[in-house]
Amino acid sequence: MAKTIFAVIMAGGSGTRFWPASRESLPKQFLKVEGGHSLLRGTWSRLEGLVDPENILVVCGQRHADLVRESIPELGENNLILEPVGRNTLPCLALAQIAVREIDPDAIQIVLPADHIISSRDAFQQSMGTAIHAAQSGGLVTLGIPATSPATGYGYIQTGEPIEGVGEGKIWTVRQFIEKPDMARAQELLASGEFFWNSGIFVWTSSAFEAALERHAPELWRGLLGCAEGGLEEFMEGLSPLSVDVGILEKEEDCKVVGAEFHWSDVGSWPALDDVLPDAGAGNRCSGEGKLIAVNASNNVVHGPDGHVTALIGVEGLVVVHTEGASLVCSKEHAQDVRAVVKQVREQAPDRA
Amino acid sequence: MAKTIFAVIMAGGSGTRFWPASRESLPKQFLKVEGGHSLLRGTWSRLEGLVDPENILVVCGQRHADLVRESIPELGENNLILEPVGRNTLPCLALAQIAVREIDPDAIQIVLPADHIISSRDAFQQSMGTAIHAAQSGGLVTLGIPATSPATGYGYIQTGEPIEGVGEGKIWTVRQFIEKPDMARAQELLASGEFFWNSGIFVWTSSAFEAALERHAPELWRGLLGCAEGGLEEFMEGLSPLSVDVGILEKEEDCKVVGAEFHWSDVGSWPALDDVLPDAGAGNRCSGEGKLIAVNASNNVVHGPDGHVTALIGVEGLVVVHTEGASLVCSKEHAQDVRAVVKQVREQAPDRA
Repeated sequence: MAKTIFAVIMAGGSGTRFWPASRESLPKQFLKVEGGHSLLRGTWSRLEGLVDPENILVVCGQRHADLVRESIPELGENNLILEPVGRNTLPCLALAQIAVREIDPDAIQIVLPADHIISSRDAFQQSMGTAIHAAQSGGLVTLGIPATSPATGYGYIQTGEPIEGVGEGKIWTVRQFIEKPDMARAQELLASGEFFWNSGIFVWTSSAFEAALERHAPELWRGLLGCAEGGLEEFMEGLSPLSVDVGILEKEEDCKVVGAEFHWSDVGSWPALDDVLPDAGAGNRCSGEGKLIAVNASNNVVHGPDGHVTALIGVEGLVVVHTEGASLVCSKEHAQDVRAVVKQVREQAPDRA
Repeated sequence: MAKTIFAVIMAGGSGTRFWPASRESLPKQFLKVEGGHSLLRGTWSRLEGLVDPENILVVCGQRHADLVRESIPELGENNLILEPVGRNTLPCLALAQIAVREIDPDAIQIVLPADHIISSRDAFQQSMGTAIHAAQSGGLVTLGIPATSPATGYGYIQTGEPIEGVGEGKIWTVRQFIEKPDMARAQELLASGEFFWNSGIFVWTSSAFEAALERHAPELWRGLLGCAEGGLEEFMEGLSPLSVDVGILEKEEDCKVVGAEFHWSDVGSWPALDDVLPDAGAGNRCSGEGKLIAVNASNNVVHGPDGHVTALIGVEGLVVVHTEGASLVCSKEHAQDVRAVVKQVREQAPDRA
């Protein structure tokens, strides 16, 4: 009998790379970049037809509960899991595991970050189908993105043996996970042809994940189970942040990787919008509901509030973001310096950080 | 006996070169660029100690009366002259002449645009003193700015004979006025060493100006006088726009030019703010009350609302303007294309033009 499919959307992130549009009060997953919809909403919509909405859980921090409800008004009352404090993805997914096991200890879980952009729902669901198949025979399955450049911002996954049978040619055992490499190492990994990027999207059965938690993070897991009667906030505050990649997957023997067949971006910074937004002419991209007027201007990324007019004249390769209270103009090559700016803003104008 | 000194501030302009900060509803003279004060306010303050505030008249369009009152709350009720319709500087100054002659037909008038930036009040008042002296012996006096580049955006004034006596070495007869030249001609004029730029600041006695109006623009002058009982709006609507330079000065035999000893800018477009705003580090200039954070960014001009944070990263030589509803990012070399953008904005988002 087919197992019930659950999805856990991780909406707890709070990055600064999309300042000033994304701030502490409005993390990236709530940014409206896809035709006026937030990234979180896009993630929810991508599951339509694959996962019953009743079986989709969203995990986020207390302060962002209202933003989640605004993005997904139809989210069931009990389907929002609030983290008293964020400690990266392992505690987040362990909390979700507690919720899912109570409903259906035999479920399949799709686990996915709220802030990715994936162009085709059909292709996404097809790859998910393959991953669900792979997970049903046990182990932890990760979605791998075919590496197309020596990116240093992603983790890498080396393929081992191909898995025969259904999904053949799309599923491999994992030989090893590699943390974000430097440029020289990334070039080697790319050249070998044996590596995927780690998407951070996972599929597993509840029982497989619970067994892995018992094996590799028993203190965390038992501690969380022990908070059923209260004390969760205190317990989580005492935890060090730990990702599920480092805390579980890298230690687990039985891991598989499914090669994703969809176009994916984790939209790590403003220039990444180049890959996911439509060309508004001359390579310019305009996200949200802003309006762009370009004269002798090309290859710029623009983000503004609804109806805001941005005029670009004689400029190229810029990121231009306008919000109430703060603006950013940045060459694409310097997009990583946004973090340094946010640090300065925190010191000099904390309400704008 | 010394004549009473009047000042006429012309605040009727409505340019588009400072879009989006300056719009139809907020022309350049009301822009706050000098330490939070509007250019109009700066012009008013520059007259302090030289002209009794009771004798300062401001001319503007009906729709901007409130903005003038806001900039100069102490302006007397009868000191604001409203033009029913703008027809350039000649009708504007003829209207002012009618107001001044009623109060004091023997007055000296200083006539000046509201939208200049002049760095030193002392130097300004010293040059005005020289010009007042020159005007007292009759004729029309214009303030000339020593030409330092082959600018094509200004009119030029060729000096004739030096005037002996008080102010010697600073006053000349005018040989000719030359309209905005092309670049080749501007280079010739500059090389000859005989030319000033025409500042648009004039000094004359009421009687000299009235005589010149009678001589060179009798229809306009008599028509305006005939509107004492009404019909001014209709009469002015029938006029073609005409500048006092073309309509009077170029035709008048008895003109003098006084070489200005102050640092002057007519702030014709965004990049001109380079010359008048303090360096905020690395050649960046920040006008208004906005806040600038610059990382690897140099020689940019930034304008934003009070308290607005603008972050620049890895960019050079840009004009960056953010207002509620509209933003501009423009390379300084393309600043003249702002007009083309305003045209597009008028078509596509008229409330933002």
